Amino acid sequence: MITSTSNPRVKELLQLQKKSKARNQAGVFLAEGSRMVLETPKGRMKKLYVSETYSRKHEKEIKGLGVVPEVLSDTVFAYVSDTKTPQGILAVVRQMDYQLDEILKKDAPHILVLDNLQDPGNVGTIFRTAEAAGVTGILMSRDCVDIYNPKTIRSTMGAIYRMPFLYIEDVMEGIRTLKEHDVRVYAAHLDGKNAYDQEDYQRGTAFLIGNEGNGLRAEVAECADTWVRIPMAGQVESLNAAIAATVLMFEVSRQRRR
Amino acid sequence: MITSTSNPRVKELLQLQKKSKARNQAGVFLAEGSRMVLETPKGRMKKLYVSETYSRKHEKEIKGLGVVPEVLSDTVFAYVSDTKTPQGILAVVRQMDYQLDEILKKDAPHILVLDNLQDPGNVGTIFRTAEAAGVTGILMSRDCVDIYNPKTIRSTMGAIYRMPFLYIEDVMEGIRTLKEHDVRVYAAHLDGKNAYDQEDYQRGTAFLIGNEGNGLRAEVAECADTWVRIPMAGQVESLNAAIAATVLMFEVSRQRRR
Repeated sequence: MITSTSNPRVKELLQLQKKSKARNQAGVFLAEGSRMVLETPKGRMKKLYVSETYSRKHEKEIKGLGVVPEVLSDTVFAYVSDTKTPQGILAVVRQMDYQLDEILKKDAPHILVLDNLQDPGNVGTIFRTAEAAGVTGILMSRDCVDIYNPKTIRSTMGAIYRMPFLYIEDVMEGIRTLKEHDVRVYAAHLDGKNAYDQEDYQRGTAFLIGNEGNGLRAEVAECADTWVRIPMAGQVESLNAAIAATVLMFEVSRQRRR
Repeated sequence: MITSTSNPRVKELLQLQKKSKARNQAGVFLAEGSRMVLETPKGRMKKLYVSETYSRKHEKEIKGLGVVPEVLSDTVFAYVSDTKTPQGILAVVRQMDYQLDEILKKDAPHILVLDNLQDPGNVGTIFRTAEAAGVTGILMSRDCVDIYNPKTIRSTMGAIYRMPFLYIEDVMEGIRTLKEHDVRVYAAHLDGKNAYDQEDYQRGTAFLIGNEGNGLRAEVAECADTWVRIPMAGQVESLNAAIAATVLMFEVSRQRRR
């Protein structure tokens, strides 16, 4: 059992928890909590850490995971945990690696393109909601928040393991590729002529979703085939990015169920 | 100018910032930041506080508010602020006071009933989104998070001033009242027979939205006229409360625009 916070493995965990660079260099991320660890696909889990209390209480569950855990004292576990009241289980998981080809080869892809989204919780919620709405892939501009940020991972509620995604260096280039593959690209925009529900989303569809505070960058919005508007009552000037994405994705889901 | 954190007004502000009880006893809440303060209806603003820097930089804006501000040194302002990087303006605002009658007397009301929602950001986002979706009123169970919590106020993005709302002692009693006023009450429920978009929302409509982790309480769900299901793809077990509410509210908005 590791009982000291100066143990090298503890230091490594803390780096992985806090630093995007450390995660990317090692090609891993941390999945914390019983639910997230249980949903981790076999073969992706590289290491498993449990607190002393957790190891005592959940012997059977831990055995089922097929990875021999390293036990940390409760104090050390709390030290490396990202949550205020840690459950006591934490896995080091190999990062996902999707290719654009895979995302595009589906019939009538349903894609989100996230441009410069900064809120970890927002992005996580978008992943979770996207899975429910039948989205087939998510593209993110390089300057979006790190999907492997512990808070983002937590908010995906496991969708991180099931929703294909990709960071793209050049969003506009990515949008051109979508168009070449017969995907119609829509920008949610206040100046859209049609309301979002006046379009037909049976064929390949992608939505561009912009930054929480500033919306879509003008040059990115320009790349869309069509601007659509989400009609808003009252004096609301804009919707939260995850909320706007939800309205659009579930309209696709609604139309495709008919 | 107030330069000491032991000044009684500073202590009072801190209480109002942190304690729901202090807010309710005084019948006020705090609106922080330029946008929230500017949107505060005339007559509701009881006191205005600005930081020294803000008072120097925004003389004209402050004059336009029609309330003589109390100036706090930047350090003291940061001390009473709820945000990490305070803008430097903060108003003490009289709490809103709506009656159920007002909410019910509209034609075809569009109502949300929030049951035991605990996340301040979620509730704020629901208010903001509800205004955009044309919701006419929000009822909250007494055990929902305090709407006057500074984080909730901030997430409403001003909708707190425009969206009629009411805490109700007894949710089930409230639901009965809605039904008596010819409002059809829907519960978003995994066991709903119809998908949410198979219902007709032209007439008075209310949605019951349950707690983030546990969903609707069984006895509350039982009070609904109809359970509706939000179809979900993948392995998602549930949606975030604000997301589920969004899907439902915008379906009403969509149908009523036709």
